[in-house]
Amino acid sequence: MVCLSQEKRGLRSGGAVKKTSFQLLLPLQSLPSSCITQCSWVHLLRPKMLRTILCTVLFMGALPSLAEVSQGHISVVLLGATGDLAKKYLWQGLFQLYLDQVSSGHSFTFHGAALTALEPGQRLMFDVLKKLSCPQDEPPDRCAVLKDQFLKLSQYHQLKTAENYTVLNREIEMLLRQEGLKEAGRIFYFSVPPFAYTEIARHINSSCRPPPGAWLRVVLEKPFGHDLESAQQLAAELTTFFKEEEMYRVDHYLGKQAVAHILPFRDQNRRFLDPIWNRHHVERVEIVLKETVDAKGRTSFYEQYGVIRDVLQNHLTEALMYLTMELPANLSSAEEVLQRKLQAFQSLRGLEKNSAVVGQYQAYASQVREELQKAQDYVSTTPTFAGVLIHSDSLRWEGVPFLLTSGKALDERVGYVRVLFKNRAYCTQSETLRDAGYSQCKAKQIIFYIGHGTLNTPAVLVSRNLFKPVMPESSWREAAVQPELHIFGQPLSDYYVYNPVKERDAYSVLISSIYHGRKDFFITTENLLASWEFWTPLLDSISHQPPRLYPGGVENQQLLDFEMVGGELAFALAEPVELLHPDMPTPSDYKTIQSKFRQSPLVATWSEELISQLASDIERAADRAVAHSGRFHLALSGGSSPVVLFQRLARHHYAFPWRHTHIWLVDERCVPLTDPESNFFNLHNHLLQSVRVPYFNVHPMPVHVNQRLCVEEDRGTELYAKEITALVANASFDLVLLGMGTDGHTASLFPHSENGLEGAQTVVLTESPVKPHQRMSLSLPLINKARKVFVLVLGKGKHDITSLISRVGHEPRKWPISGVSPSSGRLVWYVDYEALLG
Amino acid sequence: MVCLSQEKRGLRSGGAVKKTSFQLLLPLQSLPSSCITQCSWVHLLRPKMLRTILCTVLFMGALPSLAEVSQGHISVVLLGATGDLAKKYLWQGLFQLYLDQVSSGHSFTFHGAALTALEPGQRLMFDVLKKLSCPQDEPPDRCAVLKDQFLKLSQYHQLKTAENYTVLNREIEMLLRQEGLKEAGRIFYFSVPPFAYTEIARHINSSCRPPPGAWLRVVLEKPFGHDLESAQQLAAELTTFFKEEEMYRVDHYLGKQAVAHILPFRDQNRRFLDPIWNRHHVERVEIVLKETVDAKGRTSFYEQYGVIRDVLQNHLTEALMYLTMELPANLSSAEEVLQRKLQAFQSLRGLEKNSAVVGQYQAYASQVREELQKAQDYVSTTPTFAGVLIHSDSLRWEGVPFLLTSGKALDERVGYVRVLFKNRAYCTQSETLRDAGYSQCKAKQIIFYIGHGTLNTPAVLVSRNLFKPVMPESSWREAAVQPELHIFGQPLSDYYVYNPVKERDAYSVLISSIYHGRKDFFITTENLLASWEFWTPLLDSISHQPPRLYPGGVENQQLLDFEMVGGELAFALAEPVELLHPDMPTPSDYKTIQSKFRQSPLVATWSEELISQLASDIERAADRAVAHSGRFHLALSGGSSPVVLFQRLARHHYAFPWRHTHIWLVDERCVPLTDPESNFFNLHNHLLQSVRVPYFNVHPMPVHVNQRLCVEEDRGTELYAKEITALVANASFDLVLLGMGTDGHTASLFPHSENGLEGAQTVVLTESPVKPHQRMSLSLPLINKARKVFVLVLGKGKHDITSLISRVGHEPRKWPISGVSPSSGRLVWYVDYEALLG
Repeated sequence: MVCLSQEKRGLRSGGAVKKTSFQLLLPLQSLPSSCITQCSWVHLLRPKMLRTILCTVLFMGALPSLAEVSQGHISVVLLGATGDLAKKYLWQGLFQLYLDQVSSGHSFTFHGAALTALEPGQRLMFDVLKKLSCPQDEPPDRCAVLKDQFLKLSQYHQLKTAENYTVLNREIEMLLRQEGLKEAGRIFYFSVPPFAYTEIARHINSSCRPPPGAWLRVVLEKPFGHDLESAQQLAAELTTFFKEEEMYRVDHYLGKQAVAHILPFRDQNRRFLDPIWNRHHVERVEIVLKETVDAKGRTSFYEQYGVIRDVLQNHLTEALMYLTMELPANLSSAEEVLQRKLQAFQSLRGLEKNSAVVGQYQAYASQVREELQKAQDYVSTTPTFAGVLIHSDSLRWEGVPFLLTSGKALDERVGYVRVLFKNRAYCTQSETLRDAGYSQCKAKQIIFYIGHGTLNTPAVLVSRNLFKPVMPESSWREAAVQPELHIFGQPLSDYYVYNPVKERDAYSVLISSIYHGRKDFFITTENLLASWEFWTPLLDSISHQPPRLYPGGVENQQLLDFEMVGGELAFALAEPVELLHPDMPTPSDYKTIQSKFRQSPLVATWSEELISQLASDIERAADRAVAHSGRFHLALSGGSSPVVLFQRLARHHYAFPWRHTHIWLVDERCVPLTDPESNFFNLHNHLLQSVRVPYFNVHPMPVHVNQRLCVEEDRGTELYAKEITALVANASFDLVLLGMGTDGHTASLFPHSENGLEGAQTVVLTESPVKPHQRMSLSLPLINKARKVFVLVLGKGKHDITSLISRVGHEPRKWPISGVSPSSGRLVWYVDYEALLG
Repeated sequence: MVCLSQEKRGLRSGGAVKKTSFQLLLPLQSLPSSCITQCSWVHLLRPKMLRTILCTVLFMGALPSLAEVSQGHISVVLLGATGDLAKKYLWQGLFQLYLDQVSSGHSFTFHGAALTALEPGQRLMFDVLKKLSCPQDEPPDRCAVLKDQFLKLSQYHQLKTAENYTVLNREIEMLLRQEGLKEAGRIFYFSVPPFAYTEIARHINSSCRPPPGAWLRVVLEKPFGHDLESAQQLAAELTTFFKEEEMYRVDHYLGKQAVAHILPFRDQNRRFLDPIWNRHHVERVEIVLKETVDAKGRTSFYEQYGVIRDVLQNHLTEALMYLTMELPANLSSAEEVLQRKLQAFQSLRGLEKNSAVVGQYQAYASQVREELQKAQDYVSTTPTFAGVLIHSDSLRWEGVPFLLTSGKALDERVGYVRVLFKNRAYCTQSETLRDAGYSQCKAKQIIFYIGHGTLNTPAVLVSRNLFKPVMPESSWREAAVQPELHIFGQPLSDYYVYNPVKERDAYSVLISSIYHGRKDFFITTENLLASWEFWTPLLDSISHQPPRLYPGGVENQQLLDFEMVGGELAFALAEPVELLHPDMPTPSDYKTIQSKFRQSPLVATWSEELISQLASDIERAADRAVAHSGRFHLALSGGSSPVVLFQRLARHHYAFPWRHTHIWLVDERCVPLTDPESNFFNLHNHLLQSVRVPYFNVHPMPVHVNQRLCVEEDRGTELYAKEITALVANASFDLVLLGMGTDGHTASLFPHSENGLEGAQTVVLTESPVKPHQRMSLSLPLINKARKVFVLVLGKGKHDITSLISRVGHEPRKWPISGVSPSSGRLVWYVDYEALLG
């Protein structure tokens, strides 16, 4: 029944490329059914290319029209063809592509490449290829024939020198010419360590670009950098060789069927989700990838990266984006999806040290010492477990906790994305009756089950008391009932459960997407950098933090459970003493120093601790003032240092008596209040918009009276002075927060200023040496009337002036900050170690 | 062993009071132990009173010193002595008081009173008394003796006429004189229908007051009115007869041991609760009283009151207050507790129609028709089931849903107060492992279990993963383990469970509190009126709403389950058609009419629907404007009508594009912005403080420039005009919301105003005929430049002007509202039925 015309053909050997089996394949489905009885007619169509023809038409489906035949040739080059990833997934993915697309009208060749010399390389590669398996849903006969073809279409190349690339290019061109084929495109799949990227990219760009009219697609595997800076550098390098549309950065999670279905699910179930996919209905979201394996044998990679870079920054973050982004009108537009995703990144609230808990399994350190030949006293702070709490400030998600967690050496292997909805119901009937039927009081959740775990298959689960989802019948089907299974606290029968009609490996899905040019399944440069921008501050802030040690597996018990406490994360259980690593730096390194600076109290510590302490001190001052007089008059400075303070106050000080607090400005730039340069604008964005200070209690400086900026005759300074007099008893603020400039200025009182350093005027216009030059400021005499003055100094850049000011006397004309000396109030300096110690 | 000297003594019969058994009792424990062998010595102490002596000293505990003897006599008068409540609880409570206090140093007499004539009344009462039971923890011999004494100390009186009261008073006085007793006080317990209160109170006040030095305590049973007005009236009447400290209004729930322990629990566990007793940690609170009985036999009462007045307004509200109020420093100060409670009432957000769901069991209507002899077509809308969603706007509780629910003919009898905490933990280990031990992922709750239900005893339960509570050992003890029991979804072993050491009936607790003068267990007038003030608007708004019918008992299934949807409540299931009562008015009665008014579109319906529609229309306008130009300029009027609109926008329109909305004022009174008369102040309180309009987008009218009010030379009108010109394209607001005064004014443009009705000036100062006279207002020409103008007219008081304006032409000098006619915009009238139809 099979009519087979097969002929081996030797390619011309040139350079490192030697004779090897090679064949061209006409799309099989393009053959008319007459082929069953007569195959020779096909020679009439394209005599040159028909040296080899497979007429396995009996195994084929419907036959396409002849117009679809020969849409061009695609060359796939797999770099790192004998590596782990290639062995495990990529060759199988390419074979699947061949199985799927053999009838698409394209013809293919597959080029494995590595640094290994030709002979051993060939052997290694064909050992891999021989083991390729046929998918279950594939007729075995057809598959066997096609596997045979696939092997013949594949050849090995050593790619080491520039010449190797030139030769490869020449061979591809020659082959195409010989076969009379039009070139459709070339795929270069980088399954190589990232340090090799630039070199390979340069060679491909200079030697292996296809001719005009054919496309180039280079596929890159993570890691794509180590932090924002390295990612930017790598991206910049790649951009010199490839256009953005040519690059396909793989995050294989996007090929996982359950992850890939998040956006289509949201789109197809808009009707049900529109009212509930928001902060009013979603209680929390968990994005989880748990592994039982540890890092043994991979520590050379792992020790540099750790779990956050390995899993959270990419896989889990992408899933987070799919959940939180606004749906574009057109889901099939990769550009629209990207824009929405970037907006979602913009809405994420910045991570702080306490946004995460990190752990390390106990055996890790010794594995690292052994594999990397480190000394016995070598200490690793690389996390192998992390839980991170993420918030979005978008109107849709504000306040909803997104918990991302992943780790090695845990008690089970499982991956899922779980959206838990709030219970908004009260069930009037008793519990026993309630459990008997459909009830709104049962948990409501939507779960994208990525795989492994209890279900051991990808799945989409929707609680039956939510809605029956719309699922595409071609790709997802309702699962068989498994009454004994429980998942997330409920029997499986409480859910609508869907499994893929055909389970597909992530790499098969992705390779198919590359073939189809579906860029929405890949990480664009903008997306990548947005993600690194989000993660890098956390990675920096925890880089020296000792992770909690855990024994691994079921023995972890509750040791890695964590809790949200006031917007931060913490392990639920106190650390058991016996597990503490003796080599770890202890938390006491971070203790604050209390001492004196210019005869006034000094609080000094690392900046994060300092801000935390300052915020608490301000809250305490506020509580006292409100208890005493019913209100708290707080004057705040502009500049960058207080921004962190504002954020801390907004996020962590729920009990702050905002309703009784009056907010004043210490100084202001003469720009409209809505200008990003405005001190008030920053105060508003980072603090006021998040707390409930009554409108009447907010007192921006009137720098924009009569729609003009700081014009003397508009008498803005007088207006502000009057307002202070009218509201602040004795014009004595409860607390004034100041900063210090590198020139010794404070407020907007600059050295040798004509106004504000002395005299009766309480609010003054001044000139700054830097733009915008015009400023409004409280005067030094007014500041010195305050009950409390706190001066905040942060960062290495302030070290020199800090040292200087520590020595000088009262010389406000030279250094205005030296004139700060509350006549009957208390002055406290908050200086971080970097400013204090350099 | 018992030395007994007993002698019957006939009291002088006078009026309706006839000879009956009567005895005085010396406090038994005051007898020295020598009494065991010799009782006659006691005659030496107070010869006159020792006609009858019981020396049951063997049953007594430690003997008090002689100094404690004879602290005076207390007369207890129980009005309604043969009624249901008296039979069921009050006599037993009085007997318990006697048992507890017989050794306190006080002597007692108990006077039952009713309208019934002496002989039958006596018989009825003593039938009740004979059945009094001895508490389990009382030695039976002692109890038997004391019961005998109690009966002898009790007598019946017919109290009908003024003379009856005079006689009662004379008898008490005579008895005391004869016995040589000092009077300590009198308790009058009103167990009578409320209509009898005033009459009885008058008689007591005029005839039965004790002499100076002795106290009077009158105990009142609910209902205390039917709504705010009737409660105020009743309170005012009672106040003419009694001082506040003399009145003890009973809410017997406050005597339930679990309820009575809420405040002490909060106080004693401050250490654990301080960090979590707030909106950040509490997910929801349920306050529940479910009954299986129905109202049969009580419909004459029930039909007037219904479940909200019967249970929610009092019992459940008091429990709510105990939960939400701030703890006073001194819990034993009734005055401090009251003040905190009143503050808690002030923080409650007002209820609206949709804050509640109501039901009625199906048999109720026929029971009412039968018992009250109503016609067959009589329709009752009295709810027998209600669920109510309450929010507090306090900083502590903002956003936490408090669900109060009660009903008759439900599937179980149970009462509880349940505080459910948020799950803030992520448990890293798999579910199976998680359930094996202590886990932060299990539910966390604190339950004050009032009684009945699964536990069938009062209890306090605290989840073991929360904390081990401090409980007073003298009154609460850890419960025995009952591994088979589950409660609120968890095995009982997940909780610390405490039961009362001694289970006490609520009335015993309360009668004891009356005796001790513990006013904190009773409802003061202020407390009562605060509660009615809170509940009356809801009762009014649902008075004609057809309740959902339910079959009763377990058959209710999920029919009464309800859900929170956008700050409102709704039944979870759609109403099954077959249960719909054919006689009920249908919801279509509430549909809006769309028509014309003065040639412009008119929306007319009941006020609540009207506000709802107006709010939606404003949101739609906002969405369109933002989509079109990126911002929405909204000018709002002052006055009382818009307040409901502001609240609706703040509470129900989460998706409103506030960040892109600019808020302008249509008019303002010349008062400081923080004055309660200020339009802006009201706008701020009811809307701005709840939503996120950026500070820069809020534009109050500058009526208070230079700390002066609307002084021409401060040029506030020019400032506002400039601001409009600078920000609003073409000075054309996207939407202007207007009202209409009874004189036809709109904005602050009054009839015959010199400014603002015409001319080029866009913002003007005007004079109002009512105080405060000085106003600032947008001019009519500016208003008419708007893209949309909505006019809102509410209430009967506007009916005449509405009728008039519907007929007149364009005469802005006479009726400024008639001059509203947007030159290129759209005018829509929103008029409620009361204003439109009168």
